[in-house]
Amino acid sequence: MKIAIMGFGVVGSGIGEIISTSEDSLEKKCGEAIEIVKILDLRDFPDSKFDCFTKDFNDILNDPEIELVAEVMGGTKPAYDFTKQLLLAGKNVVTSNKELVAKHGTELLQIAKDKNVNYLFEASVGGGIPIIRPLYSSLVSNELTNVIGILNGTTNYILTKMIKEGETFEDALKGAQDNGYAEKDPTADVEGFDTCRKIAILASLAFGKYVNSEDIQTEGITKIKLEDVAYANEFGGVIKLVGMAEKTENGVYAGVCPLILKKDHPLSGIDDVFNGILVRGEGLGDVMFYGRGAGSLPTASAVVSDIVEITKNKGSHIELGWVKGDDGYLKPLGNQSFRFYIRLKGNANSADFCREGFNVITLDGEKYADEFAIFTPAMTMAELEEFKASELSDYTILGCIRLANE
Amino acid sequence: MKIAIMGFGVVGSGIGEIISTSEDSLEKKCGEAIEIVKILDLRDFPDSKFDCFTKDFNDILNDPEIELVAEVMGGTKPAYDFTKQLLLAGKNVVTSNKELVAKHGTELLQIAKDKNVNYLFEASVGGGIPIIRPLYSSLVSNELTNVIGILNGTTNYILTKMIKEGETFEDALKGAQDNGYAEKDPTADVEGFDTCRKIAILASLAFGKYVNSEDIQTEGITKIKLEDVAYANEFGGVIKLVGMAEKTENGVYAGVCPLILKKDHPLSGIDDVFNGILVRGEGLGDVMFYGRGAGSLPTASAVVSDIVEITKNKGSHIELGWVKGDDGYLKPLGNQSFRFYIRLKGNANSADFCREGFNVITLDGEKYADEFAIFTPAMTMAELEEFKASELSDYTILGCIRLANE
Repeated sequence: MKIAIMGFGVVGSGIGEIISTSEDSLEKKCGEAIEIVKILDLRDFPDSKFDCFTKDFNDILNDPEIELVAEVMGGTKPAYDFTKQLLLAGKNVVTSNKELVAKHGTELLQIAKDKNVNYLFEASVGGGIPIIRPLYSSLVSNELTNVIGILNGTTNYILTKMIKEGETFEDALKGAQDNGYAEKDPTADVEGFDTCRKIAILASLAFGKYVNSEDIQTEGITKIKLEDVAYANEFGGVIKLVGMAEKTENGVYAGVCPLILKKDHPLSGIDDVFNGILVRGEGLGDVMFYGRGAGSLPTASAVVSDIVEITKNKGSHIELGWVKGDDGYLKPLGNQSFRFYIRLKGNANSADFCREGFNVITLDGEKYADEFAIFTPAMTMAELEEFKASELSDYTILGCIRLANE
Repeated sequence: MKIAIMGFGVVGSGIGEIISTSEDSLEKKCGEAIEIVKILDLRDFPDSKFDCFTKDFNDILNDPEIELVAEVMGGTKPAYDFTKQLLLAGKNVVTSNKELVAKHGTELLQIAKDKNVNYLFEASVGGGIPIIRPLYSSLVSNELTNVIGILNGTTNYILTKMIKEGETFEDALKGAQDNGYAEKDPTADVEGFDTCRKIAILASLAFGKYVNSEDIQTEGITKIKLEDVAYANEFGGVIKLVGMAEKTENGVYAGVCPLILKKDHPLSGIDDVFNGILVRGEGLGDVMFYGRGAGSLPTASAVVSDIVEITKNKGSHIELGWVKGDDGYLKPLGNQSFRFYIRLKGNANSADFCREGFNVITLDGEKYADEFAIFTPAMTMAELEEFKASELSDYTILGCIRLANE
């Protein structure tokens, strides 16, 4: 099978590396050789072992021999137009482009179906961790109810440094940038946008209807202080940035936010740049997937696994079970009840909260002298606002984080 | 699609339950309805909602409308004969029968290939945890080097009770039996035979060539004492029963044995009846799968996922990449080097072992007065025997357990 790669960055070059070094074993697995015949990139790569570079997308689109294209350019422009044209031309597309899948997945999957080709995106979530295919394949006979994941390695690295080494958010971010784990502009990571796209994709697959990432309430980790880490620790928990989605009797909700996980929660031990994804289903119980969520070769290997999958399913469309959602399908995260951790400063009288359903935590040391933290009973966002108005008006709220439901 | 179930025990009835309660969503996922038209079991089920029971295998074999059979009888007799006849007759077979897959998988897969049908067994390892399909599908583009897993819930429950609650092996086993986690005759679990079949299946898939479970050196947990647990804990580790397989320059080896895992090992936190499987590949790094490894509905849901997979691949054989191995393909576990924990009693002079590469651990308390434990440098089994002869002849060896390699 002749294929093309669009984008020769870390993932694209990783795909080239895997395909050229595993030629024989891939041919055995696919039943035919995989040959890279075109690579689209605006840059020049004079030292590359490949000599099939082009700067013109039409060289790929109009080559009838190319049956499959790996789109690893990232972003939606021009990736969206390119992908659409390729699918319409009857070519298979595999991608690691979470932004594009989260935004236009429904439309692109429909085109792939109409044209009896495939649009696969195992690499869009969790790097080399197999999670997309298990959701549409292995776990397909379960009614899934929950997906919750640590989906962004950069923020998990930062939080781990804060928790384990007492670094401030700012210092940990700088360390992550120095180590190449965070970009110069870390917004997409630390504000939760990357996690948001990934949980949108997972929720769309797990529950079968499209969840628009733009409708998902998203909160990052920039406001997390070492004091919050200390109170969480005293409570027996750790703070993690999670994407979560749940199917309840009242509908589907999804959100991205810092969450305090008790230390017996399966995701609580996922540290550093690792990702972990917990899937819960009726009957199934909890299943967790864990691994390095990024990196050139893991991500590229996931793209290549999609290429292999397509060679094994030539001439047929693999149904992922992801269709357009109804209006109002996604409910606001605020409707769902959680316990809240709230750090309070002021004329502290923690005894007010020593009552059923609450936990009160005070810490030793001068810096904690004028403050304390409470864990409220489970409440919706509206109930939280009411509670703040009625009982917390005398305090300054220094921090507020959800506690994971059991 | 009309299907039959052979064996109406916990898994078989779970399949019936899932298919009858998820009729609509399954039809959507499969593109056609799944209808159970025959159930083979020698017992009577007068209260069952199904009315298609038969005691005669030929009712299934000779029914041309039945395209797929779920074999969940267990054991090899008559499951092997039945499965072979069904595949030869051009019917697809899905199974949870690890014993049969481990023993006759190569032959049955070959027949399925020749007849252009499928023999799938996601449920044979890890219950509802998706691990079989990720190995032959999602991870297919990686050169896998290691598979190590806690694959048996019963023994993991027993070890967890010993580690966390200080119960003896005998008491913990009795508790497991009382809770329904262990059979009256617990041999297959506690002697490691169940784990052995599962690692044979995983190794066969991960490295592409058949590993015969009968060639795998297998050691259970019946000799583990609370003292061993205490020394391991002092060393910063826990004892787990693992199945492990590794592809090295010198060949493939596999083994089942208790292993001391340092507490930062991803499998060290897998407790109670949970299973965890760690897969390592070149470039990929470590990927871990975790969940409840047994139970009626999780296991049945894995069988049903194979049924769905087959409906999506009608008329084509799914290649699992598992072929006959060469003679001598599997190397003895003893050839591979490990550090060893050895508990010693006698005219104790622990200072003898306070040298490079060794750790010496002594514990407080009268019961430990006359003994101590050492952790040796990495050595093969032959080197261990030599070491014992040259340096340990004055001691009684009370325990000897491998330490997981980094």
